[in-house]
Amino acid sequence: VIAGIGDDCSVLRLSPRDEILVTTDFTLEGVHVRREWHPAGVVGHRCLARGLSDVAAMGGEPVAAFLSLAVPEKLPQLWVEGFFRGLLRLAGKFNVELAGGDIAHSLAGILADIVVVGSIPRGRAILRSGARPGDRIYVTGHLGGSAAALAELFAHPRRRLDPALYPRHFHPLPRIAAGRVLRQRRIASALIDLSDGLSTDLSHLCEESGRGAEAVGAEITETAIPRARIGKSSRLVSIEQALHGGEDYELLFTSSKPAPSKLAGVKVTEIGRITRGKGMVLLTSSGARRQLRPAGWEHFRP
Amino acid sequence: VIAGIGDDCSVLRLSPRDEILVTTDFTLEGVHVRREWHPAGVVGHRCLARGLSDVAAMGGEPVAAFLSLAVPEKLPQLWVEGFFRGLLRLAGKFNVELAGGDIAHSLAGILADIVVVGSIPRGRAILRSGARPGDRIYVTGHLGGSAAALAELFAHPRRRLDPALYPRHFHPLPRIAAGRVLRQRRIASALIDLSDGLSTDLSHLCEESGRGAEAVGAEITETAIPRARIGKSSRLVSIEQALHGGEDYELLFTSSKPAPSKLAGVKVTEIGRITRGKGMVLLTSSGARRQLRPAGWEHFRP
Repeated sequence: VIAGIGDDCSVLRLSPRDEILVTTDFTLEGVHVRREWHPAGVVGHRCLARGLSDVAAMGGEPVAAFLSLAVPEKLPQLWVEGFFRGLLRLAGKFNVELAGGDIAHSLAGILADIVVVGSIPRGRAILRSGARPGDRIYVTGHLGGSAAALAELFAHPRRRLDPALYPRHFHPLPRIAAGRVLRQRRIASALIDLSDGLSTDLSHLCEESGRGAEAVGAEITETAIPRARIGKSSRLVSIEQALHGGEDYELLFTSSKPAPSKLAGVKVTEIGRITRGKGMVLLTSSGARRQLRPAGWEHFRP
Repeated sequence: VIAGIGDDCSVLRLSPRDEILVTTDFTLEGVHVRREWHPAGVVGHRCLARGLSDVAAMGGEPVAAFLSLAVPEKLPQLWVEGFFRGLLRLAGKFNVELAGGDIAHSLAGILADIVVVGSIPRGRAILRSGARPGDRIYVTGHLGGSAAALAELFAHPRRRLDPALYPRHFHPLPRIAAGRVLRQRRIASALIDLSDGLSTDLSHLCEESGRGAEAVGAEITETAIPRARIGKSSRLVSIEQALHGGEDYELLFTSSKPAPSKLAGVKVTEIGRITRGKGMVLLTSSGARRQLRPAGWEHFRP
């Protein structure tokens, strides 16, 4: 970052061998977060995590963030300070500079729009569109932890959850390092982050991979899906939460060869194969073949 | 733009000799626009114009735009289509690709956040901070036309204004070509666009130029300020509107040598000088010296 806040534009300089990645994501009160459930710092953290995860999903390196924040006139200044603290703490972890943005009053509710600019060596971005029939399908980490926390919040709206017991919901860590290894070692044929839920994001990956090429689908083995554990009792989340729950910010990738069992210290699990022709199939624990429909994110909304 | 909408990030490639410009601007219903005054296409146009003007204010070339749009659930789809038509028409004029973004429902009101990414040869961005005592101060075009239209709307809230008679308010054209000439011919020591009003934006330029250097101020000659003409009768706007009115999206620049009288076909007017020490002075038409305070934009709000 050559020039940041205080001029008409921010000026960034990348290596001449790099391409630029740009991603933009809304975080909306009442949709992604609720003030009574999510402390200000958590909202700031999750807001930036969304953008960083998109950069991880290309195998890229985040460089700078730009925040546009609209808040109701009556919102306490303390809330805004807490929001920035949470956002800047996460930015610091990934050496990302908050290089600009805009602040305004909204008529109702908090709206944060995060822009993350990243870099990637020319031609090396890992797209969603490279999956081919026969490729293995992998995910990082454990799934469903964020949606399961949200389900508890909906079930007991007045209960406060301890963020430390539900880290994937309150403080998701974008898989920047794992994405970097996938790029450097040319492991992944296609890559996406799990923001909308496995079933939905996998359908996106298949759709993009089939665009202008032979249509592809996927076959997923239910018992292989790494389910998250949540809460004090380390309860395993349901298979539905792991299949469809959004906002885990893990990575989903395909590879024509066996992938390592860990990437930058993060567990990697093979969960299925890319198939010829459209459609997703779930091999259930009872051995049945069931059609798998994209049912992420929207499913879990109020 | 190598990859646009449909992946986790957009991928942009610039010339290795270029730096990246990034700017982000909110357009908020009730603050910048009103649905009853501004047709959807005008809102789309003005939304993108804000971002393009910031790139012009660095002497840069716009490359790609990213739009995050939050609209109330009940907003007609026709409105959204009109918005995009207005935005894309302006984008086409400047060869800018809409390369990504996000759409969501807002709890109340329309919120559009526009991000424009531009390019500029390395080290050649024209900052706000380069003005030195003795530099001449110039503006492009005519000032106050946008604020004067807004004043008419406030005075007669039910009257519709003919956009063709108030072009600077309804369809402001960012001064990309003029900014480019300023950069190529190394004319400007400092540059800013007039989005908040001359008095406010000039104070920003002085402040940034005095940061870590000798403090600078400005002396402006009232009679020199090029006032816009508006409406059917081509009425000259008031001096207050020209001095403080926002959203003209003209350029304000300083130069150590006389500037040409036109830049890329746009009229250029010398309006004063940069002075030693803090503070802005207005030489009034009666020959008096009056302190000039930043009184832009906020001044004209409801």
